[in-house]
Amino acid sequence: MTDDFERMWADLAPVGRSTSSGGYFRQPFASAEEELRGWFAEQAAARGLTLETDAFGNQVAWWRPEPTPGQVEILGVLTGSHLDSVLDGGAYDGPLGVVSALAAIDVLRDRGVQPSRAIGVGVFREEEGSRFGLACLGSRLATGSVAWAEVEGLRDRDGVALGDVTAAPENGAGGILADVGCFVELHVEQGRVLVDSDDPVGLASGIWPHGRYRFDFTGRADHAGTTRMEDRADPMLTYAMTALAANKQARLSGQRATFGRIDVAPNGTNAVPSRVTAWLDARADSDEALGALVAAVEKQASERAGRDGTTAVMTAESVSGAVAFSADLTDRIRSTRSWPVLPTQAGHDAGILSAAGHPSAMLFVRNPTGVSHSPDEHAETVDCLAGVEALADALMELV
Amino acid sequence: MTDDFERMWADLAPVGRSTSSGGYFRQPFASAEEELRGWFAEQAAARGLTLETDAFGNQVAWWRPEPTPGQVEILGVLTGSHLDSVLDGGAYDGPLGVVSALAAIDVLRDRGVQPSRAIGVGVFREEEGSRFGLACLGSRLATGSVAWAEVEGLRDRDGVALGDVTAAPENGAGGILADVGCFVELHVEQGRVLVDSDDPVGLASGIWPHGRYRFDFTGRADHAGTTRMEDRADPMLTYAMTALAANKQARLSGQRATFGRIDVAPNGTNAVPSRVTAWLDARADSDEALGALVAAVEKQASERAGRDGTTAVMTAESVSGAVAFSADLTDRIRSTRSWPVLPTQAGHDAGILSAAGHPSAMLFVRNPTGVSHSPDEHAETVDCLAGVEALADALMELV
Repeated sequence: MTDDFERMWADLAPVGRSTSSGGYFRQPFASAEEELRGWFAEQAAARGLTLETDAFGNQVAWWRPEPTPGQVEILGVLTGSHLDSVLDGGAYDGPLGVVSALAAIDVLRDRGVQPSRAIGVGVFREEEGSRFGLACLGSRLATGSVAWAEVEGLRDRDGVALGDVTAAPENGAGGILADVGCFVELHVEQGRVLVDSDDPVGLASGIWPHGRYRFDFTGRADHAGTTRMEDRADPMLTYAMTALAANKQARLSGQRATFGRIDVAPNGTNAVPSRVTAWLDARADSDEALGALVAAVEKQASERAGRDGTTAVMTAESVSGAVAFSADLTDRIRSTRSWPVLPTQAGHDAGILSAAGHPSAMLFVRNPTGVSHSPDEHAETVDCLAGVEALADALMELV
Repeated sequence: MTDDFERMWADLAPVGRSTSSGGYFRQPFASAEEELRGWFAEQAAARGLTLETDAFGNQVAWWRPEPTPGQVEILGVLTGSHLDSVLDGGAYDGPLGVVSALAAIDVLRDRGVQPSRAIGVGVFREEEGSRFGLACLGSRLATGSVAWAEVEGLRDRDGVALGDVTAAPENGAGGILADVGCFVELHVEQGRVLVDSDDPVGLASGIWPHGRYRFDFTGRADHAGTTRMEDRADPMLTYAMTALAANKQARLSGQRATFGRIDVAPNGTNAVPSRVTAWLDARADSDEALGALVAAVEKQASERAGRDGTTAVMTAESVSGAVAFSADLTDRIRSTRSWPVLPTQAGHDAGILSAAGHPSAMLFVRNPTGVSHSPDEHAETVDCLAGVEALADALMELV
């Protein structure tokens, strides 16, 4: 099993990697991610799994049991994750769940397991939302939690529309999740709870509610030299105060708020900007706390805009409510070993499937620094292998 | 003359104009600016002027007097300005000086003037520094105030090097300014002094010292959801505080400081940035005041970086000392009419020529809003025509 895992990991290592930063650029519908999808199809074929793909490009490779006469067919167990990355992201976020799922199937076969229900390995597309701005886009479409009409007009940074690069997948009974009962996603931990508790593996209790909010700050373009400070309407100042206010508000309340993306017009050194657009990523431990956090940031933006002579308009681009993973499923997995249970602040496809009625659970693998969405994201191989064993145990328990 | 001016103005109106913003995108060595250069060559030819162009693309169209036997040749009078714009800039900054120069020649000819020295209309390239980041690049190269070796490696936002799009011009005796004695540049005012004094035209006393300073704020990329606020090293926060500090410092001291350009890596909604690069444009009424302003901003950036766990490194990309225009030249022009005299906070090719030993003066045309470097930049036609008359009067006085 060690060999299988390490060979697969070595296959993926160079794909979409920046030699300058060491980070990964695996945006959906572009070459590196397409290469990973091809690799996944080869891995499925090598294991004799039946690959299904929907029109959006979500993939599921099935290991189906031999039909037993008279047996009532029950829905399958899905595992897997995603292969796309954020811009300049790490190696583990996503691919670890896919590689571990394939390796876990190898473990089950080594153990001589004959599953009584189908096991699928899924790869959901555009999980990070790094291209079209909506996270978990593949799983949202597959479950029908967003309609194609709502998203086909989403555009990437180059102005290319989603509807120009792909088609609508079928969801519901005709879709790729038709045979899926429950879902178990393995993922690298994106914090340091398992470091502190000294466990290689943990289970998720749920996902914090979170959202992306676009702030459009509008002012008046002017010459940076000749316009007196008091005559300006500079939206950069409104933005800067809002970014600091969001940070302070999140610190005070124990939540999370980040402005990591900005777009300035005209973005010239000697021009007071006419417009600053910036995106707030906010997360909190309850829906109420998230609402209060975002409202406080919006209020401070508006107040500062009033002083700067600018305007600040906030638009919620996506908001995901709190997710509680299936206690029943999590308890069954913990019956194999009493892994610690922790919440996560990150969105995952498991959250989307859970909200759509598929009982879901998540396994986390320890991350020694807690850093993710960064070239520095890491997990020790020994912990990754413990993750594969834990996932194999979980699947044995469920099939 | 009115017809000439308005016809030329109508020629230029559509070139490089954004139909969405109404602003101009006339970056050097790209199609709109090339078209303007072709237009200028046609205008020169239509007037029988002799066009000279250097390897960088600076242009001078000469009206040379008939040689008089025995007369000692004296250096010519240059007028003109530039045709490039900032990103999403206005119609007047630059082109008004070129069009007015051509129109002033038409006025002199209508008046039957026979100049005793040559009159040149100059178009300096990349005055705004909007592509390669160094303002007045054409005049700096023509005068030899920067060496080609210092700038040929400058790169635009797409990574194209200056040395890949153009060659080194000759300067000194062999260059395009070999026959230039003094320089008179007409420019739209970039403030509201002439509005307040109720004059259509004014003269410049000098240019404030000013500079561009790049700030590299470096932190650590992290997941925007899972990384606790207290575990982050977020360079966006250091930047935001620095932008606010620069504004406050400039307000308190009566100077100018602007952060109008920013570049963020990886610039993803759900990633704490690893790096924020931002450019400070700073201007002050004395070299000492500029130094104090920039030092104060740099100090506050460093202090904040210490608190954020980030680093802030400032690099001066270009600094121009105070320019006092030629009092003698300005007095001679004021002898035709006692135009008000005002300082400017904007850099101009006239400042570069002045520093290089060419006595220089500037005429300003009233700008009703004071706005420039913006689609809203404006001058009334009646004031533009007053500017042409004033420039023609100035040239008559000097030839």
